[in-house]
Amino acid sequence: MTDTMKAITLSNPEDKTSLTLTEVPIPQLRPGEALVKVHAAGVNRGDLLQAAGHYPPPPGASEIMGLECAGTVEDPGTTTYKRGDRVACLLAGGGYAEYVAVPQGQLMPLPEGYSFAEAASIVEVACTVWSNLVMLAGLHEGQTLLIHGGAGGIGTFAIQLGKALGCTVAVTAGSPEKLQTCKELGADILINYRDEDFAEVMKNKADVILDIMGAKYLDKNVRALAMDGHMVIIGMQGGVKGELNIARLLTKRGTISATALRARKLDDKARIVSATVENVWPMLADGRITHRIHTTIPLADAARAHELLGSGAVTGKVILEVA
Amino acid sequence: MTDTMKAITLSNPEDKTSLTLTEVPIPQLRPGEALVKVHAAGVNRGDLLQAAGHYPPPPGASEIMGLECAGTVEDPGTTTYKRGDRVACLLAGGGYAEYVAVPQGQLMPLPEGYSFAEAASIVEVACTVWSNLVMLAGLHEGQTLLIHGGAGGIGTFAIQLGKALGCTVAVTAGSPEKLQTCKELGADILINYRDEDFAEVMKNKADVILDIMGAKYLDKNVRALAMDGHMVIIGMQGGVKGELNIARLLTKRGTISATALRARKLDDKARIVSATVENVWPMLADGRITHRIHTTIPLADAARAHELLGSGAVTGKVILEVA
Repeated sequence: MTDTMKAITLSNPEDKTSLTLTEVPIPQLRPGEALVKVHAAGVNRGDLLQAAGHYPPPPGASEIMGLECAGTVEDPGTTTYKRGDRVACLLAGGGYAEYVAVPQGQLMPLPEGYSFAEAASIVEVACTVWSNLVMLAGLHEGQTLLIHGGAGGIGTFAIQLGKALGCTVAVTAGSPEKLQTCKELGADILINYRDEDFAEVMKNKADVILDIMGAKYLDKNVRALAMDGHMVIIGMQGGVKGELNIARLLTKRGTISATALRARKLDDKARIVSATVENVWPMLADGRITHRIHTTIPLADAARAHELLGSGAVTGKVILEVA
Repeated sequence: MTDTMKAITLSNPEDKTSLTLTEVPIPQLRPGEALVKVHAAGVNRGDLLQAAGHYPPPPGASEIMGLECAGTVEDPGTTTYKRGDRVACLLAGGGYAEYVAVPQGQLMPLPEGYSFAEAASIVEVACTVWSNLVMLAGLHEGQTLLIHGGAGGIGTFAIQLGKALGCTVAVTAGSPEKLQTCKELGADILINYRDEDFAEVMKNKADVILDIMGAKYLDKNVRALAMDGHMVIIGMQGGVKGELNIARLLTKRGTISATALRARKLDDKARIVSATVENVWPMLADGRITHRIHTTIPLADAARAHELLGSGAVTGKVILEVA
């Protein structure tokens, strides 16, 4: 084994489209990390933001893009894994490469029956949705879950998880086609935000809200919250500053959290990964949750993968094929 | 026993000072309630708000004021208590009277060594502070707690609870005298909000914030929050609508809750009372938490008690003496 590998870097840091396959050093393992030979890496909006200079890796993380991958253990280091083990990985960065160093707590087995590409498509969304809906907001059977952007990658996963948990699931989306997709995945209440005010339809009904809109939906989400409801904001596509009516929130004893996965500490991530594998992997294995791959693209063509995801014309995950 | 009792009512509902001792029916017990003969009742700001028409009792609760009391069980009804048992009671209303009907889950023993008056002075604040700081926000040893209005009834209790749990406690107050009171109770960081910007002093430091100001402090509180911090709003003395910077909250993975005790469901209250008795009563018994009674006033003079609390010139609890 040489000490260099191929990885995607920006040949011009000012140009987010200049994704180029280059030769870089293979990552040095730190205590508690394993070196994983990447077979497939998922492409996320976070990678597009990082390429545009808006989402720098947290301190200590790889400068290379890529928040999830699947592959085989090349060097177990001091972890409990063995060389050759098939693993899926939650990453703070580094997935767009032939090799990546992964902390023990972010390594997990592949879901039963899953290929490398399928596993690489599911790690980030599964950990995000499980940690926010269940670990943070306490979603459970019998509750009502409202999901904004129901037809997106997070949304389609959250619908299925909500139904698997025995919840009533409401979604917003911007077209009848997208709402049809949500319906097929099990959504019970379909709201086209162009025609209807979701705050009216869902008034005082939502026990948990998964929000990607931020400021634009803040007040409407508070109106939609049920008593003791919990709103989790994981995106700010509708702006960052909004007026909060505290009196309305207090009347409902409501809670608002805003959160992200990437910068969490190692023990936090390990806790999330462990809970996700325990609870979500069985739902993947038996088909209660399915996840669609839109297309698979060779690592060298990462620029095309970004262009595709950025166009919005994808109906599932974009995967980079590495090994 | 007759079927009427003395209780405080408003002789003129338009006049919040018209608190008058009148003859009213003794409450009928519902299943799971005991009839308690009230010896002492605590006076709270909620009672002043109710007299002013701003804080109506929740559906099904007594129309009479009074959110906490202590006394003896007169008729145990279907509860597990016995006639003559000495009890403290968390109430949705009804404490300003000779008798009150109390659900099983809101009855508790008196803290060891406590008189009726002392017990009546502690129930509401103990349940409020424990439920918000520990049960909701997860406050624990080694964390930093920021308390606004540190010298008030809630504040003085929260300081001592924070210290008993092994936390660093920061407080805001508006005078050196009030800050001195906080210091004597154990507060580590003293901030006079007239001279200093607490958001600067506490920037990124507060794991848990107990807020009574609402809108006015919303943005400053978000600035003061530490990573994974949790702000609990239990008062809105600084207004109800404020701008929330969601991006700043998300960077810290922060959580905001707004909450109140009175309208919670019976099982929720029972859970809170049970946890409070288990965890806080020992701190009262051994003196880790002390609580000051400003004065004791006969029930018939409730108007004077309200005037006194409303004047702001009290340095401890105002108690109504009933039996």
